[in-house]
Amino acid sequence: MADQQCCVIVGVGPGLGAAVARRFAAAGYAVALASRNPDRLAPLVAEIAAAGGSARAYRADATDETEVTALFDAAEKDLGPIGVAVFNASGRVRKPIAEIEAQEFIDAWMRGCFGGFLVGREAARRMQPRNAGTILFTGATASVKAFPLSAGFAVAKYGLRALAESMARALQPEGIHVAHFVIDGAIGSDETNARLDPTAIAETYYQTHAQHPSAWSSSVELRPWTENF
Amino acid sequence: MADQQCCVIVGVGPGLGAAVARRFAAAGYAVALASRNPDRLAPLVAEIAAAGGSARAYRADATDETEVTALFDAAEKDLGPIGVAVFNASGRVRKPIAEIEAQEFIDAWMRGCFGGFLVGREAARRMQPRNAGTILFTGATASVKAFPLSAGFAVAKYGLRALAESMARALQPEGIHVAHFVIDGAIGSDETNARLDPTAIAETYYQTHAQHPSAWSSSVELRPWTENF
Amino acid sequence: MADQQCCVIVGVGPGLGAAVARRFAAAGYAVALASRNPDRLAPLVAEIAAAGGSARAYRADATDETEVTALFDAAEKDLGPIGVAVFNASGRVRKPIAEIEAQEFIDAWMRGCFGGFLVGREAARRMQPRNAGTILFTGATASVKAFPLSAGFAVAKYGLRALAESMARALQPEGIHVAHFVIDGAIGSDETNARLDPTAIAETYYQTHAQHPSAWSSSVELRPWTENF
Amino acid sequence: MADQQCCVIVGVGPGLGAAVARRFAAAGYAVALASRNPDRLAPLVAEIAAAGGSARAYRADATDETEVTALFDAAEKDLGPIGVAVFNASGRVRKPIAEIEAQEFIDAWMRGCFGGFLVGREAARRMQPRNAGTILFTGATASVKAFPLSAGFAVAKYGLRALAESMARALQPEGIHVAHFVIDGAIGSDETNARLDPTAIAETYYQTHAQHPSAWSSSVELRPWTENF
Repeated sequence: MADQQCCVIVGVGPGLGAAVARRFAAAGYAVALASRNPDRLAPLVAEIAAAGGSARAYRADATDETEVTALFDAAEKDLGPIGVAVFNASGRVRKPIAEIEAQEFIDAWMRGCFGGFLVGREAARRMQPRNAGTILFTGATASVKAFPLSAGFAVAKYGLRALAESMARALQPEGIHVAHFVIDGAIGSDETNARLDPTAIAETYYQTHAQHPSAWSSSVELRPWTENF
Repeated sequence: MADQQCCVIVGVGPGLGAAVARRFAAAGYAVALASRNPDRLAPLVAEIAAAGGSARAYRADATDETEVTALFDAAEKDLGPIGVAVFNASGRVRKPIAEIEAQEFIDAWMRGCFGGFLVGREAARRMQPRNAGTILFTGATASVKAFPLSAGFAVAKYGLRALAESMARALQPEGIHVAHFVIDGAIGSDETNARLDPTAIAETYYQTHAQHPSAWSSSVELRPWTENF
Repeated sequence: MADQQCCVIVGVGPGLGAAVARRFAAAGYAVALASRNPDRLAPLVAEIAAAGGSARAYRADATDETEVTALFDAAEKDLGPIGVAVFNASGRVRKPIAEIEAQEFIDAWMRGCFGGFLVGREAARRMQPRNAGTILFTGATASVKAFPLSAGFAVAKYGLRALAESMARALQPEGIHVAHFVIDGAIGSDETNARLDPTAIAETYYQTHAQHPSAWSSSVELRPWTENF
Repeated sequence: MADQQCCVIVGVGPGLGAAVARRFAAAGYAVALASRNPDRLAPLVAEIAAAGGSARAYRADATDETEVTALFDAAEKDLGPIGVAVFNASGRVRKPIAEIEAQEFIDAWMRGCFGGFLVGREAARRMQPRNAGTILFTGATASVKAFPLSAGFAVAKYGLRALAESMARALQPEGIHVAHFVIDGAIGSDETNARLDPTAIAETYYQTHAQHPSAWSSSVELRPWTENF
């Protein structure tokens, strides 16, 4: 396909990242999957190809500037202009404030927020000249509420939300849709739908991407029907 | 169609209400359109019928308990079980606080919030026994920010948002999806997409309704790509 | 005192209203206490007088425009120019949405929000020509979170917050300080300080009133040290 | 004074930090002033001493764990148990997202948020065994709104707010008051009070510290009377 576009996904585990990859591949995007362990992604790449889609795995540490830049360069060269970028990664530290070590506080932020900055910036640099594209950030309950044991996690998640808000205000007038998702509940699958099904989340990611520019959402919350809030 | 469901829309002007009607009719719902002047709705009813859909206009003042109850009874009898209810109406008073008359303050709230309560309550009463249904409320920028001249309008709009939040918390565990939309900008159509196209808004209303119960949005904001926020 | 100013307090029960009255009386204000049952206020009036302060009880229903206007006229005539107005009243309805009667939904809003509008408007009308004054509104947890059984209460409380925000934006540039307090917890007194002591709340009301105009708070939340949030 | 307590202030420029130092010194606290350039603080130390207070300057880089720990140890040894800790520092990067360098994004966060973590954690470690103390964090407009050119600054400021919220939820039930201030406007002094006077801000810091535990504020916004919001 001469005019196929690329969807870069950073942070691809077996749950949400994979579901987003399947959804955008089904919509015709060539999907670039980035992970620190790209070998893990071989089954997903094969599955997408078997379903008639296009996908490729790349090695990249989201907290390494050189690797993120190389990822975007390679994806654009291999798969086409980047139309969509999705940042999914996060670190986590769950401890009382007095017990958090300095380095683990920094690491949680580097993985959960700084990585999002690198991905968002590289996406913006390639989308701005074209005045087109979509950048999606995955948040959590801790993006909007900082629990007693979540200081480290919430600092990263509030920061990622700030990044998304700033980028939405800056880039939407240039034609680039930026949206942040608050995933308010546990991701997984069960019969009672008490956990957020990754496929259901991915569908809303896709529908948000597909919104007409006269009516864009920049902040979307999703939670199971049974979730307290 | 034996199992066709009804979508009740209260507050149908030429813009958003009509677009929502067209979208849910296209998805197979029999649409009940309510207005204080149902004659105005004849062309829309005819248009939906010509497109192969089903629609019917009803006379109802959203602030009159008897009329709202009668509307729901008639719609359910004529068109099928109510699967979706949409509240769209609002009053408006735009004046410095010192100049607002008591009656116009009350009227703005009655149209913008009390009407929403009647519609939401009647929908809930019919949906709760079936553990199914969707209730959608239309908000505005004034739902989240109260401007100097908007005391009367914002009081109604904040109130409607409170109603939607309370109903979402109460009804979602019973299987009823409740969502509130903050329409952040002027509704209309133009070539630059600087105003919210009603058709684009209606598409997100429908996609929100169509969400899987494991990943529901209860609060959605929509704005044009060019809008400051 | 030739230049004594008046502090009008609407909604004076044995708890917060009385504490606010004592605090502003101690600071030199002549306090106008308004209630539907002014006889109940006689002990408080006597107590303030015994402490060297000045207070007077007035009969007024906060939801009656004529009575609220008469209250402000009388207080200004009897006690001096109105420097501070405090709105404290609220109605309450606690029921599942499907069981709330139309009239009780309206009544909760009339007492909790419309009364605040009348008090705020009459205060503004008298303060604007002087470019000075303070208007304080008492909110609750339900001002910012709408619980499943609180639709009626939260609609009034969100509305009152909208009113306060609009008035703050409109009136602060004219020299009138408008602040809204979210009282997040139960008011009362106990040894463990697990309930909000009315005297402690009243102290923050006074300190907020006393803020220098270069650094005004317009939204203040207060909760017991033990309260979850 | 045998039972004098210490107030540690990290981030002391000529404006807010100095005003906070004067206010807590006037209230009887021995003030520990920390800066990367403690020589700059000699005039303030002298001024506080001349006014009958107690103050001492310490060298500390807020982003260096060893130095922050040493600061708290020295302050407690020299001046008494730490009753109050104030974090005031912030970095700033103001650029379009595509132009922000990785290192300046990291540096802004290290100064504005990680430094707050070190100060907050060291304060908590010393206050928790005593079940007493106050920890105050200085925020900005960018703590709650991320502007187009403020991605780097807002990420740090949202993060600091998350830290404060998590610490408030965790520590308040242990008797430690944690509050975050949104300073919504430019700090400075002028005749029209259109800028936030540092002395006025410091007064509210002190009054917040002085609140009774049954009615604590954990989030306080301050803005000039003329400020739009």
